Amino acid sequence: MLSLILTMEDEVVLADFGLSMFCIRVKIALAEKGVKFELKEEDLIHTKSPLLLEMNPVHKKVPVLIHNGKPIAESLIILHYIDEFWNDKSPLLPTDPYQRAQARFWADFVDNKVHEVAKKIWTGKVDEHEAEKKELIGNLKKLEEVVGDKPYFGGDTFGFVDVALIPFYKWFSTYEKVGKLKLDFPKLVTWANKCLERESVSKFLSDEKDVYDFVLAHRKRIGVD
Amino acid sequence: MLSLILTMEDEVVLADFGLSMFCIRVKIALAEKGVKFELKEEDLIHTKSPLLLEMNPVHKKVPVLIHNGKPIAESLIILHYIDEFWNDKSPLLPTDPYQRAQARFWADFVDNKVHEVAKKIWTGKVDEHEAEKKELIGNLKKLEEVVGDKPYFGGDTFGFVDVALIPFYKWFSTYEKVGKLKLDFPKLVTWANKCLERESVSKFLSDEKDVYDFVLAHRKRIGVD
Repeated sequence: MLSLILTMEDEVVLADFGLSMFCIRVKIALAEKGVKFELKEEDLIHTKSPLLLEMNPVHKKVPVLIHNGKPIAESLIILHYIDEFWNDKSPLLPTDPYQRAQARFWADFVDNKVHEVAKKIWTGKVDEHEAEKKELIGNLKKLEEVVGDKPYFGGDTFGFVDVALIPFYKWFSTYEKVGKLKLDFPKLVTWANKCLERESVSKFLSDEKDVYDFVLAHRKRIGVD
Repeated sequence: MLSLILTMEDEVVLADFGLSMFCIRVKIALAEKGVKFELKEEDLIHTKSPLLLEMNPVHKKVPVLIHNGKPIAESLIILHYIDEFWNDKSPLLPTDPYQRAQARFWADFVDNKVHEVAKKIWTGKVDEHEAEKKELIGNLKKLEEVVGDKPYFGGDTFGFVDVALIPFYKWFSTYEKVGKLKLDFPKLVTWANKCLERESVSKFLSDEKDVYDFVLAHRKRIGVD
C-alpha cells in the first residue's frame, strides 16, 4: 500500500502549440507552481490529433491540460485549475474577493479586447480594420494605466493578469508590422522586462521572429497576402 | 465603536436591465445567498446613465454589481465574486478543483456557444444564418447531454451552470419563432422546471412574451425586419 502511494505521481500532459499565447499561459503557470509536465505538440495547421479530438471534443483547440487522464480546456479556466489544485505555492490569484474579480476582469479584457481585436488586424487585409487599430491602441493604453508603475499587475507579486498578458508581448512587433501601426507603451515594456526576468516566462515566451514568420505564413494560407 | 460596526451594512446595488440574461444571473445568485440588493434599471435603448458610465467605463454594459461603492462587471466574474464574498451559504461552485473547472467550462460554453450563436439568429435577417441554427441546436443538445437525468448541472445541488444557463430558457421560444426552428430538448425542459421551483429563479426570470416583444422591437430598430 505504501509503495502504491509512493508511485502515484501526478501525470500532467499539455496538448500544446508552441507559439500559442494561450498555451504559453499554461506553461508559465505550471512552471511557477513547480509542476513537471509533458508537452504534446499539436499540428494545428494540417491534422488535429486523436488526442486533441478526444480530450477537447467541444472546441477541438489547444491548450488542453490533461491531469491524470482528465482534460481541462480553455486557458483561463486551466489557470484557475492550476491555482486551485496546486494551491500550496505561488498563488496566481490574490485572496481578496474584490482583487480576484479585478484580476479576472483584466484577464478577460486581454482575451476579448486585445487578442480578438489584434487578430482581426493580423488576419485582415492591409489597410482594413482602421477602427480595430485605434481600438487596440486604446485598449493597450488602458492596460498600461492599470499596471502603471507597479512591478506587476497585482502589485508586487507576479500573478494572474501577468500570466494572461505576457505571452502577447512577443506579438506586439508583429501587430506593428502587419497593421502598420506604432505601439508606444513604455510602462508595458518595463513591466514585460520585469516578467522576463523570471525563468518561467523567459523559458516559454516565443521568439518575435517566429511569431512574425508564423503570421506571414498564416496570411498566405488564408489568402489575405 | 460597537454602534459603528452594527450599522455597517453591506450596500449592494445592481445596475440592471430587467430582460438581460446576464443581469438575471446576478439577481438569482444574490437571492440564493440571501443578499439584499437595490436595482438601478438602466435605459440601454436611449441613454446610458452616468452611474453605468462611471462604474463600467471599459464595457459600459450591465450588469454591474456595486458593493459598498466598488464596481464589479461581467456576469460570470460577478458570480465568482458573490460566491467568494458571501461564502457562508449556498455555494455556487463545487469545492473540487476539477468539478469547478467543468462548471466554468460549461458556463463559458453558454456565453460563447449558446448566446453568441443565438444572438446572430435573433438579430439576423430571416432565412440567413442557417449554419448558426444548426450550431445552436447542436450546442443545446450538448448541454442536454451534460445535465442528463440529474436534477441540476452539478448533480443534486443548484449551482454555477444552472445560474448561468437558466435565464436563457425564457428566450428559447423567441429563438424558435424568429429563427423558424424547433428546439426539442425534453431533458432541458425538465431541468428548467426544476430550477423554476426555486423562488430565486421564478422571481427574476423573464416572461417569454416580454422577451419576444423586446426582440421584435430590437429587430425593427436595427432594420432587419
